[in-house]
Amino acid sequence: MRSFMGRDILSLKEFERQEFFRVFEIAERLEPIARNRKNSDLLKDKTLVTAFYQPSTRTRLAHEAAMHRLGGHVTGFSDAKMTRAGDFYQESIKDTVKMLEFYGDVIVMRHFQQGAPHEAAKWSSVPIINGGDGWGEHPTQILTDLYTVLREKGRIDGLKWLAVGDMRMRTMHSLGYALSQFDCPITFVAPPEMSLLPEYKAELNQLSVNFREADHVEKAIADADVILVEPVVQPDYTKSRDERAGKDVGMTPANYKITRELLATKAKSDAILLHSLPRMDEIPPDVDITKWSRYWQEAFNGVVMRMALLALVLGAVE
Amino acid sequence: MRSFMGRDILSLKEFERQEFFRVFEIAERLEPIARNRKNSDLLKDKTLVTAFYQPSTRTRLAHEAAMHRLGGHVTGFSDAKMTRAGDFYQESIKDTVKMLEFYGDVIVMRHFQQGAPHEAAKWSSVPIINGGDGWGEHPTQILTDLYTVLREKGRIDGLKWLAVGDMRMRTMHSLGYALSQFDCPITFVAPPEMSLLPEYKAELNQLSVNFREADHVEKAIADADVILVEPVVQPDYTKSRDERAGKDVGMTPANYKITRELLATKAKSDAILLHSLPRMDEIPPDVDITKWSRYWQEAFNGVVMRMALLALVLGAVE
Amino acid sequence: MRSFMGRDILSLKEFERQEFFRVFEIAERLEPIARNRKNSDLLKDKTLVTAFYQPSTRTRLAHEAAMHRLGGHVTGFSDAKMTRAGDFYQESIKDTVKMLEFYGDVIVMRHFQQGAPHEAAKWSSVPIINGGDGWGEHPTQILTDLYTVLREKGRIDGLKWLAVGDMRMRTMHSLGYALSQFDCPITFVAPPEMSLLPEYKAELNQLSVNFREADHVEKAIADADVILVEPVVQPDYTKSRDERAGKDVGMTPANYKITRELLATKAKSDAILLHSLPRMDEIPPDVDITKWSRYWQEAFNGVVMRMALLALVLGAVE
Repeated sequence: MRSFMGRDILSLKEFERQEFFRVFEIAERLEPIARNRKNSDLLKDKTLVTAFYQPSTRTRLAHEAAMHRLGGHVTGFSDAKMTRAGDFYQESIKDTVKMLEFYGDVIVMRHFQQGAPHEAAKWSSVPIINGGDGWGEHPTQILTDLYTVLREKGRIDGLKWLAVGDMRMRTMHSLGYALSQFDCPITFVAPPEMSLLPEYKAELNQLSVNFREADHVEKAIADADVILVEPVVQPDYTKSRDERAGKDVGMTPANYKITRELLATKAKSDAILLHSLPRMDEIPPDVDITKWSRYWQEAFNGVVMRMALLALVLGAVE
Repeated sequence: MRSFMGRDILSLKEFERQEFFRVFEIAERLEPIARNRKNSDLLKDKTLVTAFYQPSTRTRLAHEAAMHRLGGHVTGFSDAKMTRAGDFYQESIKDTVKMLEFYGDVIVMRHFQQGAPHEAAKWSSVPIINGGDGWGEHPTQILTDLYTVLREKGRIDGLKWLAVGDMRMRTMHSLGYALSQFDCPITFVAPPEMSLLPEYKAELNQLSVNFREADHVEKAIADADVILVEPVVQPDYTKSRDERAGKDVGMTPANYKITRELLATKAKSDAILLHSLPRMDEIPPDVDITKWSRYWQEAFNGVVMRMALLALVLGAVE
Repeated sequence: MRSFMGRDILSLKEFERQEFFRVFEIAERLEPIARNRKNSDLLKDKTLVTAFYQPSTRTRLAHEAAMHRLGGHVTGFSDAKMTRAGDFYQESIKDTVKMLEFYGDVIVMRHFQQGAPHEAAKWSSVPIINGGDGWGEHPTQILTDLYTVLREKGRIDGLKWLAVGDMRMRTMHSLGYALSQFDCPITFVAPPEMSLLPEYKAELNQLSVNFREADHVEKAIADADVILVEPVVQPDYTKSRDERAGKDVGMTPANYKITRELLATKAKSDAILLHSLPRMDEIPPDVDITKWSRYWQEAFNGVVMRMALLALVLGAVE
């Protein structure tokens, strides 16, 4: 297995099976630091650079929190408008990275353009972590999800997945690549206009991912061990925030919605329900206190996973 | 007295008399760290999360500075627009808090909605500090003011207060609740449309606060020991910043303005003048170097007070 | 030589020759910390306050990164819109500084108004570092450039400079003042409407700076040892970012452009090429891998220089 030290985390397509387990092992080892709420000294002498060209709460803050839990420093930008790089100069990724690499020891980048972190990695002397690149991938999120499954179910292999949402989204891409390394059949449920793209389906077939598609969660939930949900209702960007107020919610069609009643009547009693959040109404709040819900746990694990990745790429764990 | 460890700081209505003095005692103990400009290690292993849904300079930075003075870490957001929580998803406070609680060990929240920090506290496993909630309260500011009085005058009981400004503002609410625990008569001076709301007056009466109202500072300044001023001229939000430039200032009516001349001719020679700033022209700059002015000292104490609160709710002082 | 402890860094006009060398000596001493990517403890107990009234990437992050490399804390604001100071209150520099001085131990300020950091320094009890003030100066950038020259060429005296760009810009002002302390002839090349202002020329003459002007880089590049480039094409602010997309680039007239061909045919083989970045097209990307290019090194030195300045004004180096 290749060492993680100095390595970029760009795509889960590059991850081999034992590398997943290596990451999970380190996450499990570092987890007590987060659980006990006692920041350690592991990365005391390192700096994380956040390069967020799009606003983000969870991904940015989970990385920052992870760095703080390991005693490290954080600098960077959380919105391209706050930098000259993102504004009128429309500076190239190369020029930006040839500056950022000197401001810290690892860079986490979110970018509206697919492939931007890969371009950054070409020029950077420090590891680049992909914090979400356009329609591309979101590897750290799916690593978090798999780790949550491992912690909650004790294993990954042999579990059946149901994924609901917009299949063109980056998390779904990372999920497919990840499952190619495990024995996990998966059913995708999405509105027709948001279904898996043909080229991506071809890729999954080539990777021998055992997948099928369904048009309603009711038809696919019964034998699912892991239910991963993303929004299918997207904000209407043609309207201002005020015009949109209250109008973007409450509209997820039943086909793509996981209600408490559906869970109670159709789901396995030991299935677990994941959502990277934020949500619209695809999981109503009354599901939160049911036995299926694991998305708060997932949020906690999001910090633990980033601790593991930072410690690994910075060579702080043997 | 209840322990402060793990406790939310939401409202001064919940503070008992000896709890104020407990906070002041810790503030006084930690003050040398700030005065000597030498950050300590007291909260080295803790992280503060700033959740500011509205821009703020003093409240946010005073908390951040306090955390740094105690050697701690800081993460969070300083503007809701920079997060997905505050933008199109209009995520619920619950969903946001069930994420933020894992990013650190205490959360300071400013929100445009009254009661938002209270809602956050319902869901959070870590203490919530109210950094100002709409028209609600601003407890850490008034604790700063009371601590400033204690440090400057050597006592709180028996001093007469004059409060000038918009009485519908959150600081005034916190002030009234706080004074209910001390022997401090207070006179409120405000424009009629900004005077104390009837329900709040009823509340102050029920709490046995010794208050009266006056329509001009001249009628109330003579026997005041503490003069607390807030702006009555509010920015005209219907105009852009450029249109407003220079037009929002210089307009405070004499009734609500503390001039150098007024102080020299009418005020007690040992009265102290407080203002949480920023100001319009309600205290002209030529007052700054007079013996009455204490607002710079108040800014310093703002850091000390947040150091005390953070250390207390995080259980770092016995 | 005056001590740097507690001193403001406002203008290079105030710097004497041996003070430059003192700064360079400290930079060279601290450089290994940055090169080895191992944050130290030198400023562990200090806090840097960033007061950026205009967006900036390099200047802000280089200061933050430097503070982290020295183990220190950072707080502040990166955009005036995110503070109440910069928004509707249009708070005076004095009022803002009488707050910020308590939030940390040194303040770096970028302001759209020339002289704002000088005004801040009048009121501050902690050192102010000028991070760029309108058309005024940008001392830390030019210190970085001179340090880069020293490191790359082994000396500063006796080298011939060529400066290309908008001569009304703050970096050019700082450059002129700096060169008055060294034996460095300089040629300025700028479009007529961006040439040196008469009052600034008079000042340079008074300071005995050996300068001349030329209208084309071809006429001045042959004997240059140091070529410092800034953009002459400015973004068209009358257009939105989207309207501008791709239209602001590719338009630098040949007179002010340093191409690979020009370097290969006309420049000294050991000349070095500096640019503080971001760039438009005044240095095309194919120059990056030539022997002349030193702007990535300059970016690295930008962190080292700020480490030196922070350590000096905070009295952490003897």
